[in-house]
Amino acid sequence: VSSDAGIHSVEGGVTAPLGFEAAGAEGGIRYHNRPDVGILRCDELASAAAVFTTNRVFAAPVGVSRAHLDQTGGRARAIVVNAGNANACTGEEGRAAARDMASHTAAILGVAQEEVLVASTGVIGEPLPMDAVRRGIDGAARALRRDGAGEFARAIMTTDSHPKENAVELSLGGQAVRVGGCCKGAGMIAPHMATMLAFVATDARVSPGLLSILLRRVVARTFNRITVDGDRSTNDSVFLLASGATETVEAHTQSERLFEEALEAVCGNLARQIARDGEGATRLMEVRVRGAKTEGDALAAARAVATSSLVRTAVYGRDPNWGRVLCALGYSGADFAQDRVELWIEDVQLVRNGVRTAYDEQAARHAFECDPFHITADLHAGDAEATYWTCDLTEEYVRSNAAYRS
Amino acid sequence: VSSDAGIHSVEGGVTAPLGFEAAGAEGGIRYHNRPDVGILRCDELASAAAVFTTNRVFAAPVGVSRAHLDQTGGRARAIVVNAGNANACTGEEGRAAARDMASHTAAILGVAQEEVLVASTGVIGEPLPMDAVRRGIDGAARALRRDGAGEFARAIMTTDSHPKENAVELSLGGQAVRVGGCCKGAGMIAPHMATMLAFVATDARVSPGLLSILLRRVVARTFNRITVDGDRSTNDSVFLLASGATETVEAHTQSERLFEEALEAVCGNLARQIARDGEGATRLMEVRVRGAKTEGDALAAARAVATSSLVRTAVYGRDPNWGRVLCALGYSGADFAQDRVELWIEDVQLVRNGVRTAYDEQAARHAFECDPFHITADLHAGDAEATYWTCDLTEEYVRSNAAYRS
Repeated sequence: VSSDAGIHSVEGGVTAPLGFEAAGAEGGIRYHNRPDVGILRCDELASAAAVFTTNRVFAAPVGVSRAHLDQTGGRARAIVVNAGNANACTGEEGRAAARDMASHTAAILGVAQEEVLVASTGVIGEPLPMDAVRRGIDGAARALRRDGAGEFARAIMTTDSHPKENAVELSLGGQAVRVGGCCKGAGMIAPHMATMLAFVATDARVSPGLLSILLRRVVARTFNRITVDGDRSTNDSVFLLASGATETVEAHTQSERLFEEALEAVCGNLARQIARDGEGATRLMEVRVRGAKTEGDALAAARAVATSSLVRTAVYGRDPNWGRVLCALGYSGADFAQDRVELWIEDVQLVRNGVRTAYDEQAARHAFECDPFHITADLHAGDAEATYWTCDLTEEYVRSNAAYRS
Repeated sequence: VSSDAGIHSVEGGVTAPLGFEAAGAEGGIRYHNRPDVGILRCDELASAAAVFTTNRVFAAPVGVSRAHLDQTGGRARAIVVNAGNANACTGEEGRAAARDMASHTAAILGVAQEEVLVASTGVIGEPLPMDAVRRGIDGAARALRRDGAGEFARAIMTTDSHPKENAVELSLGGQAVRVGGCCKGAGMIAPHMATMLAFVATDARVSPGLLSILLRRVVARTFNRITVDGDRSTNDSVFLLASGATETVEAHTQSERLFEEALEAVCGNLARQIARDGEGATRLMEVRVRGAKTEGDALAAARAVATSSLVRTAVYGRDPNWGRVLCALGYSGADFAQDRVELWIEDVQLVRNGVRTAYDEQAARHAFECDPFHITADLHAGDAEATYWTCDLTEEYVRSNAAYRS
C-alpha cells in the first residue's frame, strides 16, 4: 500500500496498533493441537463498531454483541471468539451460552459484561460445549500479550488454509497511527462451517459514532464486495475497535479522509485474502463493471458476474467463454443495451458493440491464465462503476462441501 | 397423472394433439449423425403464445419470435428451431439470420414469414452457419409427419442426456383433448451451450388472448420454478400452439380450469425432467416452503434453498446438513422468526422451533438417499406456500462447465 497520505504496510495484525493485546488458546471445542478460542483486549475502553450478517437466521453471539454495543453506546474492552461451533440455530440455550462467554471473559479481565463482544464460527445447530469454551477463555486470558495477534488469527480459523492478517501505518497530525486486523474465510468453508469474521483495530482516537459510519462505508466497498458461493452465513461479523492511544480522527476533516483510506486498505486486503482462499479456489477473480447508469446497477452487474457458477467454472477451465459474462450482465437487473457492451479479459478486448471482436484466440487463452484474473465490462449506459472479488469454482469446492460430517 | 377431470398420460410428445406434424433433420450446424434442425407445423393457423427470457442480453430468435407474435396478434403456422448455435450476441447479422430462418421455412411451407416462430440453442457469440441451417430446414420440411415428435425432440437437444417429452389427454365437453410437448435442458448444459426451450401443443380451440394468459400462469408455477445454476440464459423460450382441432376452451368456465390443469401437468412434468437432467445431476430435489407470509416470500425462500450451492452439495454428499437450509431461508428475504421454523427431510423432522429435534441420525441419512429428494420447511409466518425443483451439485457440473471449448 502507498498513498499521498504516506499509508504503508507494516508487520503484524490486529495488535499492530497501540493499546491492544491478543491471544489464542486451545479449549478443545472441536479441534485439537491448535488454538480455538481467541481474546482481543484493549487497555482502555475503546470506541467500538461492528457490522453483522443481515441473515434472519443469525447466531446467538451476533444478537449478544449487537445488544452489548447498544448498551454501551459503542464502547468495548474486549472481544472473545471461538472456532469449531457457530452457536447458531441453538435457541435460548445458545443465547445463554453466548452471554456466558461474555460474562466469563469479563470476570477474568475485570471489566463489565456488556463491554465484552462475542463471536463464534463453526458447526451450525449443535450446543456450544461451554466447558471447552471456558477452558479456552481461561488459557487465552492468561496468554494475552502485545504480540499475540498471530495466535488470535489462528484461533479463529476453521478450514482456512492460512491465517489472514494485514496492517498499515499512516501519519495523522505528525503522529504515526496504525490500523490492523485479521479475518477468517468466506463461504461455509467446510461441512457445517459457517462464517466470515473480521477483527480490525486502530490506535487512533475516533468517536463511536464516526467509527460506525466509517466502518459501514468501508465494509460496503470491501467485505461486502466479495463472494465465494453467494451464501450469507448466520455469523458474519466485522468488528472495529479504536483504542485512542494516538491521534484523533475528526469528522469532516482531512484526518477522516486519510483514516478511511487506511481502513479501506486493511479491509480491502483482508477481503481479497478471503476471496483468494475460497473453498477449492485456485485463483482470485476481480470483476469490474464501468459505464453503468447507477452505482446500484454497477454493483448488481458486477455481483451477477462474480456469482455466476458458469463464469467461475469457465475461469477455472481457462475457457474464454465470454458469452457467459454477457449472459450474467443481462440478467443482473442493470439497465443497458446489449449492442453497446464492451468486455475485456485482462487487456484483451473480446467484445465490442455487443459482438465478438477479431481477438486472437491464443492471446485470450493466455489472458485466462492470469492470477489475479481481471474481467472488465463497460455497459456504456452511464458513469457509475463497481468492483467485486471472487474465486474460480472447482471440483474441490463440491468435494469439500459434499463430504459427510462424520 | 390422474385427476377428477380424467386427465391421464398418453404416449407421444408435441404431436400427440391433433393438427400437428413435426420432424428433425441433420443440417450439420455443430453436431453430426443427429438431427439439429426441427420444424413443428400446424395444419391450420394456430393460436400461439410464448414466454421468453427476461435477460437483457437476449438472442436474435427471441426478438424475431416476439415481433412475429406481435404482428400476427398471437397466431402461427410453424416453429423452426436449431441446436448447436444460440444465435446470441451476434448483433445485426444474427437478427438477419433469425429472420432468414423464418422466411426460408415460410417459403417452403407456403405460409407468411410472420407466421413462423424461431428458436435457437447452442454456442453463444458465433455466427449462425446459414448454409447448414437451410440444409436442415429443407430436410425437416420434407420429413414432416404426424409421428415426428420424437425426431423434433432429438433435434433440439444439446448435451441433454435424453429427449424430454410428455403428453396428457383430458375430456372437455365429452370430447378428447390433448396437450403434449417437449423441451431441452436447463442451465448452460455444456460449454457455451445455452438455453431452456420448450414446445407445447394442444388440439383444443383457445383464443390467442386466453392462451397467453394460461401459458403465463402455468409457466410461473412450472418452468419458472426450476433452477440448475441460477443462470437465466439468453435464449429461454416456451412456446404453446393450439390447433383448434377439438373442443373449445372458454375463459371463466370449467373448461378453462380443466385445460389449465392439463397444461400444468405437461409443463410441470417437462420442467422436472429438465431439473432431473441438470448438468452433472444425480438426483431431483423438490423444495417446498409453506407457512410463508406471502406467496412472494414462499417463492423467495424456496428459490434460495434450491439455488444454494451449499445445500445442493450437501444433498449430493448425503449429508444431513440442515443448518445450510436454515441459513438459505434466512437470507432469502422472506419474513419469519427463526425460533418458529420447522424443517423436514422426507418425513424426518430435523428442526422444530428453530433448533434440532432429537432425530435419529441413521433415519436422517437414510432420508438423504431418496430420489426425488424432498425438503419441506414451514416458516409459521402465514399460509402461503411454493415449490421449487432443482438437482444436486456435483463435481461433474464443474468438470462439464470448465472444459475447454476446443
